[in-house]
Amino acid sequence: MCAQLLSTQPYKGTRDFYPDDMRLRNWFFGKIREALELAAFEEYNGPMLESLELYAAKSGEEIATKQTYNFLDRAERSLAIRPEMTPTVARMVAGKMNELSFPLRWFSIPNMYRYEATQRGRLREFWQLNVDVFGCDTYEADLEVIVSAIRIMKAFGADESMFTVRINNRRFFNDVIAAIANTDTEGSRLVSKVIDRKNKVPRDVYERDLKSLGLSDEQIGRIDALYSMNVTEATDICPDSIGAQELRKLFEALDELELSKYCIFDFGIIRGLDYYTGTVFEVFDNAPENNRAMFGGGRYDNLVGLFVKNAKISGVGYGMGDVTLENFLVTHNLIPDLYKSETKVLVTRFDDVPYTEYMKLTDKLQALGLTTALYIGSKKFGKQIDYAIKGHYSHIVIMGASELDAGIVKIKDLETREETEISSDKLCEYFSEIK
Amino acid sequence: MCAQLLSTQPYKGTRDFYPDDMRLRNWFFGKIREALELAAFEEYNGPMLESLELYAAKSGEEIATKQTYNFLDRAERSLAIRPEMTPTVARMVAGKMNELSFPLRWFSIPNMYRYEATQRGRLREFWQLNVDVFGCDTYEADLEVIVSAIRIMKAFGADESMFTVRINNRRFFNDVIAAIANTDTEGSRLVSKVIDRKNKVPRDVYERDLKSLGLSDEQIGRIDALYSMNVTEATDICPDSIGAQELRKLFEALDELELSKYCIFDFGIIRGLDYYTGTVFEVFDNAPENNRAMFGGGRYDNLVGLFVKNAKISGVGYGMGDVTLENFLVTHNLIPDLYKSETKVLVTRFDDVPYTEYMKLTDKLQALGLTTALYIGSKKFGKQIDYAIKGHYSHIVIMGASELDAGIVKIKDLETREETEISSDKLCEYFSEIK
Repeated sequence: MCAQLLSTQPYKGTRDFYPDDMRLRNWFFGKIREALELAAFEEYNGPMLESLELYAAKSGEEIATKQTYNFLDRAERSLAIRPEMTPTVARMVAGKMNELSFPLRWFSIPNMYRYEATQRGRLREFWQLNVDVFGCDTYEADLEVIVSAIRIMKAFGADESMFTVRINNRRFFNDVIAAIANTDTEGSRLVSKVIDRKNKVPRDVYERDLKSLGLSDEQIGRIDALYSMNVTEATDICPDSIGAQELRKLFEALDELELSKYCIFDFGIIRGLDYYTGTVFEVFDNAPENNRAMFGGGRYDNLVGLFVKNAKISGVGYGMGDVTLENFLVTHNLIPDLYKSETKVLVTRFDDVPYTEYMKLTDKLQALGLTTALYIGSKKFGKQIDYAIKGHYSHIVIMGASELDAGIVKIKDLETREETEISSDKLCEYFSEIK
Repeated sequence: MCAQLLSTQPYKGTRDFYPDDMRLRNWFFGKIREALELAAFEEYNGPMLESLELYAAKSGEEIATKQTYNFLDRAERSLAIRPEMTPTVARMVAGKMNELSFPLRWFSIPNMYRYEATQRGRLREFWQLNVDVFGCDTYEADLEVIVSAIRIMKAFGADESMFTVRINNRRFFNDVIAAIANTDTEGSRLVSKVIDRKNKVPRDVYERDLKSLGLSDEQIGRIDALYSMNVTEATDICPDSIGAQELRKLFEALDELELSKYCIFDFGIIRGLDYYTGTVFEVFDNAPENNRAMFGGGRYDNLVGLFVKNAKISGVGYGMGDVTLENFLVTHNLIPDLYKSETKVLVTRFDDVPYTEYMKLTDKLQALGLTTALYIGSKKFGKQIDYAIKGHYSHIVIMGASELDAGIVKIKDLETREETEISSDKLCEYFSEIK
């Protein structure tokens, strides 16, 4: 035991979840699980520690080392606390490629760590919902994944005024750039890189860079126009592009499912040039004070290539952080009173009644399926009432010696303040009715 | 991207949870949550990373460093991946001592890491249920905690033939040793240390050590006799001991709750000399091939003393590892078919029906609350059936062009192999009835 007192603060960028906080998390992860399981998504999980090379292989050694908590174990294995789930799930899919039945609809809600400066919406420890469909190369999987994201938002009571799904397609993006800029594959790649930086550089730098690749003012204007086009106008530019067809089918299907009010085509959605290969999307918070992408994802290829030679399994998915989601729910006032309408009973105690009588009463209520506790603290009645109120109990049961003799109990509804006196036999009936 | 293929194996001592594994975990953690919440226990959680000194303060620097995964962050803070939950919960309770409403009934199911040689029942990454009551100094809290452990075992269908709760009391232990050995506090402490090692040394060494502390053969015999005594016989030796009184009240209450058939007094239960201060217990697996303590716990003091000067909050609780619990459930054949009796529908597809028709059908079934997926893989019908069977679907829905024209669908029950042809309007009705 050390003489110096220890700090009660959690480590920087991490959080303690007291019961009230935990209740909120369990509520929102529960909603998410429910929405996904309805669409036959299955939950998985993997270890917190993985080989560092798993992240180095995906993101490069430097980024992997810098962004993760990593260290050597005693056998000199280089380990990292997972900063994301994709490498783990890729490893898992690769490990049972021949046993799994594709397409897979998988999700996970792992805790993970990133070594970064803490700020609003970014902590060092967070939980991230990962939703993916593996092994389906067509737009149907893209649709399912986007629909699952909308269903989750709707499950929280969010409507189209609160969020928007902005959708683009990387195949379409490449084709339309090639069509407008009239470039070959390598030329299109260079143009794409400039466009990807559009919002990060001044307009004159952007134009100068495109011109240095041979684009005219007219071509630059045609690219500008894409940003305000709807999906029909945009895909009309290169209707034979596979990406354009995917986009059209996707938006038609969203329309059939009456979900198109949540979705918009947005040529500005790119999401990193090297990773995504088809549909890409981001879900935006529409609140003016918070108008930004909350989460996003898309289609990527070669999921298992790092593990199995010449194997190819495609994936489409997204990751949603718990902090971002919670901020959204708070901003839009979508978190209900999580204690309301729950029956939770505290059996109060007096000294002149044997403890075993209270125990049996408590046991009886629990057997009925009612959340019930027997007060086991200091015995002053006023304190017991305080305890019940602070602990979100909805009812207290009162049984003194005279009640016990008369075979009755009193029940007090802590919300209405109403007190009912009933025969002990009728106790279960009383709660069955209000349940 | 590296040329060398990466391993698909998880890191040593950790596990991948594929959907079937995850389903099992969710099932058993769900049962545990349900049993605990019924008794008004509340869930909490804390960060995976904590300051290493938190563990050093409890277990000593050497043990803490050796048994944990620990490292320095870039600000030279010494961190450890939590190897247990008690220091975290102590920190949390200390941090809100003046706001929390005691007694607390708290539980958590965190993942944690211990750096140790892997063997049956011991992995490096594991989940551990932690159940505690904080801030109640009397046997009522001990009772609640033991009852919660029995309720969890019962919730899994375990009966008294499968497990036994072995109970002792450290206050009683000290008092009865003092009474028999006729020693002072320091003398009793030394005798206790020898008794604690009883099963780890040969009998002659044990006797020699006791004799060197001044005990006679007769006194050693009286201590031996304690191991086969019931609670009444044992507590009769020193009836005025507070520990003896706690033991008696505890066993009486267990009897009132009809739980005494699961419990036995066992003088051999000690659980580490320096930590526990009152009731101690261990839950044993009764299976002959596996007869050992699965988990245990007890009462301890000075939970928050490391954080808050002169503060004292007592605790009583236990920790139960997921690996041990799973081994127990497997040994006693207590894991049911977790897919049975669940309705899960696969909507199969044919090329000559528009995709949107299938989508709408799927949507309709999901709206009814039925777990439903639309097949989005390769379209051969035989493959779709295989997919449904491997994926634990209970029913498939079949709608070809002719069925669509006639406004009907076929439903095949994959268990009974029965096929039903019904009007599309009656689809919801059909599933409502079997649900």
